[in-house]
Amino acid sequence: MAATSHGEVEARLAACAQAIETTLDELLSPRPLPGEIARPATLLDAMRYAALGGGKRLRPFLVVESARLFDRAGEGVLRIGAALEMVHCYSLVHDDLPAMDDDDLRRGRPTLHRHMDEAAAILAGDSLLTYAFDVIAAPATHPDAAVRADLVLGLARAAGLGGMAGGQMLDLEAEGRYAGGMPLALDAAAVVRLQAMKTGALLAYGAEAGAVAGRASQSQRAALLTYGKALGAAFQVADDILDVEATAEALGKATRKDAGRGKATLVGLLGLDAAKAERDRLAAAAIAALAGFGPEADILRDAARFAAERRS
Amino acid sequence: MAATSHGEVEARLAACAQAIETTLDELLSPRPLPGEIARPATLLDAMRYAALGGGKRLRPFLVVESARLFDRAGEGVLRIGAALEMVHCYSLVHDDLPAMDDDDLRRGRPTLHRHMDEAAAILAGDSLLTYAFDVIAAPATHPDAAVRADLVLGLARAAGLGGMAGGQMLDLEAEGRYAGGMPLALDAAAVVRLQAMKTGALLAYGAEAGAVAGRASQSQRAALLTYGKALGAAFQVADDILDVEATAEALGKATRKDAGRGKATLVGLLGLDAAKAERDRLAAAAIAALAGFGPEADILRDAARFAAERRS
Repeated sequence: MAATSHGEVEARLAACAQAIETTLDELLSPRPLPGEIARPATLLDAMRYAALGGGKRLRPFLVVESARLFDRAGEGVLRIGAALEMVHCYSLVHDDLPAMDDDDLRRGRPTLHRHMDEAAAILAGDSLLTYAFDVIAAPATHPDAAVRADLVLGLARAAGLGGMAGGQMLDLEAEGRYAGGMPLALDAAAVVRLQAMKTGALLAYGAEAGAVAGRASQSQRAALLTYGKALGAAFQVADDILDVEATAEALGKATRKDAGRGKATLVGLLGLDAAKAERDRLAAAAIAALAGFGPEADILRDAARFAAERRS
Repeated sequence: MAATSHGEVEARLAACAQAIETTLDELLSPRPLPGEIARPATLLDAMRYAALGGGKRLRPFLVVESARLFDRAGEGVLRIGAALEMVHCYSLVHDDLPAMDDDDLRRGRPTLHRHMDEAAAILAGDSLLTYAFDVIAAPATHPDAAVRADLVLGLARAAGLGGMAGGQMLDLEAEGRYAGGMPLALDAAAVVRLQAMKTGALLAYGAEAGAVAGRASQSQRAALLTYGKALGAAFQVADDILDVEATAEALGKATRKDAGRGKATLVGLLGLDAAKAERDRLAAAAIAALAGFGPEADILRDAARFAAERRS
């Protein structure tokens, strides 16, 4: 029983994306903050190119809607969302580099290293990652420093060695880049773990961060983390399905590239029908994690369905 | 009047380097922390290659000796120092990349992208940077979350767009990589600003971070920040002088590369003698900033002389 509709999720996503765009634009202003010596225009332009003007802003949406469950909204929550989006954007810029996935197109535009050069892309990614922690640690994000330190810790853990960056390394290893150059034959469990690190950790953090900012109880926080993990997994399987079914025109980026590289996905391992069933099971698990919440969580429930059924 | 000697600074530096090595080794263990899904061995190996087994550990030394002024020592201070060193090591790995400074040798060993490959170097740098914020934000670093949030904010501001990363971008711009490809003719003020961002900000943060961890007064904190900035500037001029005077064998890396690239340095702009005078003036300014402290700050005073007079 969907109390909200895909239309409402899309409207709330769009409103959130607009608010995040404004927040990112303000954060990436030319004016140096206290302690900054200068903001070099070329680097700032590169960061703005990477962070502004695109993306569904799904991760900030999870922060905003999770925080709303605990009656927390406004600038502080948007700053957390914007910081999380900076980390996501940095990861896209670095993953697109020639030494990594070597992509020329992202969101229908040239990737940053094609638009400028590799050095600017590396530095802009580094700077977005660094700035994310600046934004979260600053007093404007939350009045309670313990909350801010907790949010920094969670973001670092989701994004680093044991999360997103580690997942990208496992992905490169699976392609056969290391240890003699043989592609690894990952089984379904290994693919699930890789994707939980590479994509899931940051999405799960989004849902958890809203609970942290809203001073949720430990059980509520755990519920939102579980929700975010399941949603993240559903999102990734949906992405793999989309990679097979959609056209480059609809996505604004190259498609079927996973198959072209021999990357292991659940679609490849289980087949399309079983992958769709797994995607739906994960969306249902995300919804089930919210059983302790009332109708105020309907938007998150529908977001799980939306993430699983998205067409772009 | 040096109350301590270079020998004592060298002994304290060596002891600190040993303690930091141990701390880094423990932090970069294969065991995942709570919230981490796994620590991929290939990525961990790359991070360890970049962070362990080399370097003077001057930045952690500044943290440790600054904190000691306020009777703070032990695991928490070493964690701050190790985190700062991770940021320094990440910057070396990324700056060495072919798209940046394209160096094959670092501390007498192949650079990480030569030892493994570019993708591993990019991801190891990203992961060291991310982990630095994890380490600082974690409760083991300081009992007061407000101190931890403050330390995160300061590190991010020193390392990012308005500090180290911005300085590296200015350095590449000065080489003529952007805006039409003409090398920029920097004057001495522009060189000083570039170096304050690229090198000075992180050294200054080291001295300030010890004061923050030690809950210094605002004026004491400002004094240590001033000290760190002057020491950082002296260190960089000394580095430029060394680049001209030393041999590759003594440094374990390529020398005269600045001149080879036409990079503007104070040595090139002012001449060797004037650069040496400026280096000594900066070391004296660092020492003068500590006027409010007694003999307990002699080790920091001598460290300023040591940084200016170093031979490697």
